[in-house]
Amino acid sequence: MKGLSIKDGKTFRYSGSYDNTLSLRTTLRTDLNVLKNFKPVVPEDYKKSKFVYLANNDPDQNTSLITEFDNVKFSMCDTIDFWISTKRASVVKMFKSVDAVVINDEEAKLLTKEFNLIKCAKKIMGWGAKYVIIKKGEHGSLLFFEDVIFTSAAFSLEKIVDPTGAGDSFAGAMMGYLASKNKTDLATIKKSVVYGNVMGSFAVEGYGPEVLLRIKKSDIKKRITQYEKMTCF
Amino acid sequence: MKGLSIKDGKTFRYSGSYDNTLSLRTTLRTDLNVLKNFKPVVPEDYKKSKFVYLANNDPDQNTSLITEFDNVKFSMCDTIDFWISTKRASVVKMFKSVDAVVINDEEAKLLTKEFNLIKCAKKIMGWGAKYVIIKKGEHGSLLFFEDVIFTSAAFSLEKIVDPTGAGDSFAGAMMGYLASKNKTDLATIKKSVVYGNVMGSFAVEGYGPEVLLRIKKSDIKKRITQYEKMTCF
Repeated sequence: MKGLSIKDGKTFRYSGSYDNTLSLRTTLRTDLNVLKNFKPVVPEDYKKSKFVYLANNDPDQNTSLITEFDNVKFSMCDTIDFWISTKRASVVKMFKSVDAVVINDEEAKLLTKEFNLIKCAKKIMGWGAKYVIIKKGEHGSLLFFEDVIFTSAAFSLEKIVDPTGAGDSFAGAMMGYLASKNKTDLATIKKSVVYGNVMGSFAVEGYGPEVLLRIKKSDIKKRITQYEKMTCF
Repeated sequence: MKGLSIKDGKTFRYSGSYDNTLSLRTTLRTDLNVLKNFKPVVPEDYKKSKFVYLANNDPDQNTSLITEFDNVKFSMCDTIDFWISTKRASVVKMFKSVDAVVINDEEAKLLTKEFNLIKCAKKIMGWGAKYVIIKKGEHGSLLFFEDVIFTSAAFSLEKIVDPTGAGDSFAGAMMGYLASKNKTDLATIKKSVVYGNVMGSFAVEGYGPEVLLRIKKSDIKKRITQYEKMTCF
């Protein structure tokens, strides 16, 4: 069984292939399409946002975009292998402009040229990000802040349909949780990572956002409780 | 950087190569040597042991060996790809004769022909083992019992010298903890898995048993506390 993911056909097309475990992805092709000449403008009523997430857009654009927000309490960005390979210096510069970097394990290794994830995170923190969150697919994630490491397992699932979008759901859940609490202390950030793991687990149970669109807050709460049981000793 | 591990040169020689992450191992060669004609006999004063761990010995011998113990409260076995490839039916039979199976992820997949670890564990439980513990190297482990899944992260380390023996240390720690508590309830087994993760983390910090021989009980306790901090939210 091989998974093939295609994202956002109209704007930015990214296609990748997953291995049998649905955990390791190989990028087959990236077409920027309309994003190539896209000059994003932040709408006026977005500029007061306190929580800002820069998804894997062009790192130069992201670095410029974040300056348009004038009330930021917590900012986070992601990136992908395409930008690391074509605009590495810009990716590093973007990392300086945010509080947190969320990145998957393979991309963290590619970017830092390290194999050990603690070394990867230290390098990224050395570039200026205060928090680094490394996503490890089916193996959960690692959060780094100063000397603290918070390691959290993924929510174990038997049925995985398509891992595409799991990382975006992870980051979205983090930002959503932080914004809902309007807090950015370490304990709240740890909890946001747990929500990230749980929302990622919903995302992979269907194609596209179909599961995310269907579930209710009560489903999320239920799974958070299951997650606590699954990891508590 | 490639790691090469050679175990027990005199008796059973197993050599394998690790990848750059020191997480994935490829078996290069297995020589049974003197183990080929080895007929183990359980010493008289061992026969009353309540906690018995059958390491990755010939599965037929293990299945026979366990019958020599007449006071077993908890038994566990491991296996390796060599036995799965050469004596698969015997491995499955051995699993029926113990309470718990501890096995690494790659070997669980090889044995069950499944890619998802929950499916692997269900198959192994279907063969008769009550508890299944799947070790995932740097990604920790999964414990399965009936409908319960307990997922635990590994103790994150920056400096890894040699992963050889981490799995044996993991299993040894589990058995040692259970024996010290003289209990086999689920909560105690979960805690034993945590000790397994922690002892595995000591094992990989040096070659052979050098670190295990050097550390004291207080070092283990300290790392257990660190582990709790690393995983608690």
